[in-house]
Amino acid sequence: MNVELSTKRIEENLEALKAFTATPGNGCTRMPFSKETRDAAEYLKKVMTEAGLTVNEDCVGNIYGVLPGKDRTKPCIMIGSHYDSVYNGGDYDGIAGVVCGIELARILQDEKTNLDADFVVVAFMDEEGCRFGTGYFGSKCMLGDMTLEDIKHFTDRDDISVYDAMKGYGLVPENFADARWDLDKIGKYIEVHIEQGPVLDTKKIQLGLVNCIVGIQRYMVTVNGRADHAGTTPMDMRMDAVDMATKVVSKIADWAREEGNGTVATTGYVKAVPGGMNVVAASFDFSVDIRSVNNDVINRIAGKLRAALDEETKKGNGSYSIDTKLVITPVDMNAEMLDIMEDSCQEHGYSYLRMPSGAGHDALAIGQVKDTVMLFVPSKDGRSHCPEEYTPYESFGQACEVLTDLIKKL
Amino acid sequence: MNVELSTKRIEENLEALKAFTATPGNGCTRMPFSKETRDAAEYLKKVMTEAGLTVNEDCVGNIYGVLPGKDRTKPCIMIGSHYDSVYNGGDYDGIAGVVCGIELARILQDEKTNLDADFVVVAFMDEEGCRFGTGYFGSKCMLGDMTLEDIKHFTDRDDISVYDAMKGYGLVPENFADARWDLDKIGKYIEVHIEQGPVLDTKKIQLGLVNCIVGIQRYMVTVNGRADHAGTTPMDMRMDAVDMATKVVSKIADWAREEGNGTVATTGYVKAVPGGMNVVAASFDFSVDIRSVNNDVINRIAGKLRAALDEETKKGNGSYSIDTKLVITPVDMNAEMLDIMEDSCQEHGYSYLRMPSGAGHDALAIGQVKDTVMLFVPSKDGRSHCPEEYTPYESFGQACEVLTDLIKKL
Repeated sequence: MNVELSTKRIEENLEALKAFTATPGNGCTRMPFSKETRDAAEYLKKVMTEAGLTVNEDCVGNIYGVLPGKDRTKPCIMIGSHYDSVYNGGDYDGIAGVVCGIELARILQDEKTNLDADFVVVAFMDEEGCRFGTGYFGSKCMLGDMTLEDIKHFTDRDDISVYDAMKGYGLVPENFADARWDLDKIGKYIEVHIEQGPVLDTKKIQLGLVNCIVGIQRYMVTVNGRADHAGTTPMDMRMDAVDMATKVVSKIADWAREEGNGTVATTGYVKAVPGGMNVVAASFDFSVDIRSVNNDVINRIAGKLRAALDEETKKGNGSYSIDTKLVITPVDMNAEMLDIMEDSCQEHGYSYLRMPSGAGHDALAIGQVKDTVMLFVPSKDGRSHCPEEYTPYESFGQACEVLTDLIKKL
Repeated sequence: MNVELSTKRIEENLEALKAFTATPGNGCTRMPFSKETRDAAEYLKKVMTEAGLTVNEDCVGNIYGVLPGKDRTKPCIMIGSHYDSVYNGGDYDGIAGVVCGIELARILQDEKTNLDADFVVVAFMDEEGCRFGTGYFGSKCMLGDMTLEDIKHFTDRDDISVYDAMKGYGLVPENFADARWDLDKIGKYIEVHIEQGPVLDTKKIQLGLVNCIVGIQRYMVTVNGRADHAGTTPMDMRMDAVDMATKVVSKIADWAREEGNGTVATTGYVKAVPGGMNVVAASFDFSVDIRSVNNDVINRIAGKLRAALDEETKKGNGSYSIDTKLVITPVDMNAEMLDIMEDSCQEHGYSYLRMPSGAGHDALAIGQVKDTVMLFVPSKDGRSHCPEEYTPYESFGQACEVLTDLIKKL
């Protein structure tokens, strides 16, 4: 294959796709079932058709482009990502993985590759979940993990449900189940994505072979004390929620550091009530987000959290409650495909790193049931979900070279 | 003197004063220069007059009732407190000290006490500072510590300045300087106040002999890190503002506990920015309020705060800034008057405790320049600045018995 040619074609597609944003000049805002999504969908369908694919947009807005294999009854190789964005996001997150899939279809045809099975490029609707507070909508519909109740339940900031948005988009939401695939028809799933973190860029490594998508546990904790006058209440008569809670929060990052192996733990949200400078806090809310490739590690940190809360609220005469917001177990990527990609990197002289993905992707939903692999390209300064998001086009060209090898060997 | 009679007269006055609130049924709300303040002022003047005092309302709303002594050129003994409240406050904070002053004037006349110097009962305007964000307004005007710039500068939530509020109240704000006393005319200042803390009530002690009003240092600290994705940014590539800041905040209360002697330190306000559950915080703001009878202790804790911020922001590759909000040095109460009150407590069999005041009072402003003493009565469950604020009337009667002895001996 010709990496320069691929890079050029990817650049042309991604540059054209930059136009489909609701916030021109301030990043990509492409919400599901919006005019911008429709415009992007029509462009993708046009490009897929030009690339020789048989195009189909399903009843929930997923777009498939098929390059038929010799034996059409064999499970397909599917490659793609999503074509929605966050609010004021970047021009690469998701959509670049779709374009790489289309480019691979072009390469396979340029090289007159005779594929055993169908090669399917997919552009999923609504992975980010920004508009409706959902996530992995399109891939979950494909997997049969969505319900009409969910579609009616989740609403956007204007109180428009997924159901109503789909109708406004010209779809028949009651037909959503037709988007489900016979899972036996899917053989492997491959996704190219920007890293969205600083590791590859900082270490000057060209490609990231994702060996695992991390598991996540997310909690909202409330520590309860009692409001008192900060001047007149002696220390030994207080139930200071800030004192109790920060003695726990201050340890959370350390627990992740102690575990190592890419484990991360974060408190990003805090609130003291009533919040007066001269009032001992009656309560302190904080979030905890724990991620690791090893579910035992996540459980161990969650256990330390509970133990520390027990200890500190006992010392401080307070109490606490924990609300579980999210529990996702880690998903290992397919070892065979990783080995093939590693061989390819070595052959072409690309520097690479086996690394976990700290963020979820469509590959997280699909990887639960199908052999899946992800390939990361560097994000400049680790920036993502912002207009500054940037990855050089040649990185996508290099990814396509490695994936061409992978697909040929499968 | 007759404690039961005094208790009854104090009860009658305080019960009548409960009517002068802008929030009937939901605590006392008596903002400076309001209709409720005017009604309370007229009632106080009537009661002072009935108590045989010569009444004068000055040009900023302070009310003085004078019982002349034998030598009117001698520095007076002044006793009182304030007659405003916080929003939805209690029926004792401030006003009970004014009523005790009036009751003492009645006792001194009942007992036909021949005073050497004038005995002055004072009801100060606007100690709480709730309406305009000021504090000690009336006592500062008396001391000459107020300026016309301040009067024009400070405004309430409806953007009405002290200046405009005074005009609306029928005063001439330009005359504010006439409220200033010749300080040589003030000999001693005495203030009865509810404790506003739990110490006396918890320990079942009848009276608190305030030996010091604590000093206060108050800071707003901002720890700066960098916003990052909580999933994709490894622990060693983060500048986590929550992690850095809570490693400091979690120590603040312990520093106060280590110092003992009534030292208190409180973080009541916290804020993480941007505050997303899945975003490493870019910054973390927190308040610090340190109080002690010993200014060295306050400075030592403030020093520990800075040292810990230096250490943790260095470790975490962040930075910080400190905004100083308040610096007040401790004020010792007059030793001679404290000894007299202690003798009196012993003589009458009242349990007592020498204790600091953790809250500021008009006595804090006046104590900077004049011999001052405060006498605390218990606050049920330490509650104050709320409708639940409660002190039994007999406590005020007991306070008057001790103060009758004090005034006679001075």
